[in-house]
Amino acid sequence: MQRFELLETHMKSERMARLGRLHTEHGVIETPVFMPVGTQATVKACPPDRLQELGVMIFLCNSYHLHLRPGVHVIQKAGGLHRFASWDRALLTDSGGYQVFSLAGLTRISDEGVEFRSHIDGSYHFFTPESSVRMQQNLGADIIMVLDQCVGYPASPFQERIASERSLRWARECREVFTPEGRQMLFSIVQGGMQKELRSESAQRLAEMEFDGYALGGLSVGEPKPMMYDMIEAAVPFLPPERPRYLMGVGTPDCVLEAVGRGVDMFDCVMPTRNARNASLLTHRGRLNIRRKEFTYDLSPLDPECSCYTCRNFSRAYLRHLFKAGEILGAELATIHNIYFMLELMEKIRKAIHMGSFYEFSKEFLARWDNQSSP
Amino acid sequence: MQRFELLETHMKSERMARLGRLHTEHGVIETPVFMPVGTQATVKACPPDRLQELGVMIFLCNSYHLHLRPGVHVIQKAGGLHRFASWDRALLTDSGGYQVFSLAGLTRISDEGVEFRSHIDGSYHFFTPESSVRMQQNLGADIIMVLDQCVGYPASPFQERIASERSLRWARECREVFTPEGRQMLFSIVQGGMQKELRSESAQRLAEMEFDGYALGGLSVGEPKPMMYDMIEAAVPFLPPERPRYLMGVGTPDCVLEAVGRGVDMFDCVMPTRNARNASLLTHRGRLNIRRKEFTYDLSPLDPECSCYTCRNFSRAYLRHLFKAGEILGAELATIHNIYFMLELMEKIRKAIHMGSFYEFSKEFLARWDNQSSP
Repeated sequence: MQRFELLETHMKSERMARLGRLHTEHGVIETPVFMPVGTQATVKACPPDRLQELGVMIFLCNSYHLHLRPGVHVIQKAGGLHRFASWDRALLTDSGGYQVFSLAGLTRISDEGVEFRSHIDGSYHFFTPESSVRMQQNLGADIIMVLDQCVGYPASPFQERIASERSLRWARECREVFTPEGRQMLFSIVQGGMQKELRSESAQRLAEMEFDGYALGGLSVGEPKPMMYDMIEAAVPFLPPERPRYLMGVGTPDCVLEAVGRGVDMFDCVMPTRNARNASLLTHRGRLNIRRKEFTYDLSPLDPECSCYTCRNFSRAYLRHLFKAGEILGAELATIHNIYFMLELMEKIRKAIHMGSFYEFSKEFLARWDNQSSP
Repeated sequence: MQRFELLETHMKSERMARLGRLHTEHGVIETPVFMPVGTQATVKACPPDRLQELGVMIFLCNSYHLHLRPGVHVIQKAGGLHRFASWDRALLTDSGGYQVFSLAGLTRISDEGVEFRSHIDGSYHFFTPESSVRMQQNLGADIIMVLDQCVGYPASPFQERIASERSLRWARECREVFTPEGRQMLFSIVQGGMQKELRSESAQRLAEMEFDGYALGGLSVGEPKPMMYDMIEAAVPFLPPERPRYLMGVGTPDCVLEAVGRGVDMFDCVMPTRNARNASLLTHRGRLNIRRKEFTYDLSPLDPECSCYTCRNFSRAYLRHLFKAGEILGAELATIHNIYFMLELMEKIRKAIHMGSFYEFSKEFLARWDNQSSP
């Protein structure tokens, strides 16, 4: 029943990077892994066969969105999320909580759950720890998340404590109603705002409840990066080493590298796909906005060091034209590239951990990335 | 130097359907052929590798659009349209005339050419027969078109005659300045409004000038379909049988079948791709709008008789969800299907001509198509 294998660790000073393997009903995931976001049961601007070619082994769907449209009953009737989206590799769903707090008209929160209004039609909905687990079990993803309360940044220490306590309570309730069907896994989420002690306490108490994996939530919400790294360091030592650790909503190459160096195994972020649709592309020399005039006659590939479909076949001049002309192909080619970039980065990270050279690799990568970045 | 092979003909009553083969520098095209439209050097919502998988052998780009954005000099510097768009099969460019008349702010037309204002930034431009040919030679498509004057429907007999005469004059001027590089071909365009005699005269006089191919222009501009078929019948007998015939801006399956039955070899139309982006899909039982509520729980494929990527992998319920949620994947999957549908139709047409059963095939196809269509 052990689904996560911790294969190797690579230590330096107080830090430890981990190489692992997560076994799901829909394939094996090598960690550290980056999971693209497919909010509405599709990774925007990237068809599933393309995702497969890119080597994507898992992507994330947002329960909040699927609950509102098309409705969980539609997906359930279609045989679950995998069949609905024609995706036979792994999937993860979030609890819906994060979107309730960030997107919906929030009307009432209590220890029972959250009442909110749909951002689409204003209709009223109510999520409880139990209903969130049921909803996600009906969607049928390989990994599902507990309902938690995320406070933004900055928040008062009091707010942070309330939310962290409530999240622990909800995590326990989710744990109790969760009935693993097949090989579905339930991950809990460490909260605690920006307080180290709260983070440590949250991690410790969740660890005692025994989940299949542990996420770090409520980070990358506007706080300075060093503060986020401190919060990771405060939580990680209290998490069971034999379980995967997932930093939610992160991230950028630099944050991923810093977090891997602190023992995190899993990541998700809309950045690569959302930025792609806004013409912002990841390259080994930093970000590049392909709409810029200087690329009008530039016949070189987007990133000369990249061998994705986009970089093998198209010039910067053509990509710029597509974006200037508002062509859908621009979004798809940019998305392919940015996902490829993140997946290739993860592969390099895994190789470096295996070779015992992760911290050197990280340093070298960041030196080039930071120097040249033009966000 | 003969680029078009007329392989077989299939006659019934006064009519003749033709099977042919057009040799271009970028591959051999079996006719009758349907050419998707790639206005801005991309077939909207369909990447080039996907087009290739679909079996697209040629698509059309609009010179007017490319002239305005990114500018012909950009494409020329990139080594021509094929390299710019990363497309190594055949391409056709139009003269720019049609968009000038339909899209731009037209300011002045004379025998010398047309002055117009860009629909993008209002800037002034001037196209002459010579500049249109030069522009298209610089773009480097395999087939280029003469500049012509298209009148709409209805138009006065006087207007139609003036435009038809001017188009003949321009065709001659294009013919004179055209310097075939490599295997580039120049097609002329029969005009004549909705007057049979003018159509016959236009065809006859163009035939005398000897072009690589002959298009029928100024049709499908709002006139009743039988009128369009009459105009085809008025022109075709005067066109040299050993040259390809191209009905511009057509069409729908029914119009394509009627025109093939009257000796037309080539077609282009935005319909399959534009309709796809508007959720209107072609099936063997007619059109279907996938946004309709009845498809909410429909797990069957779009068209059970189709074996395209979309129909093999996704349900109507999922496609409906994608369109309702405004996801780009909806546009791509629908575009793939509609192009596949048209290409499969053309393949069936070619097979039926070869088997000597074209007119029966056409009748059977249209019986199902017409009965069930819900536009």
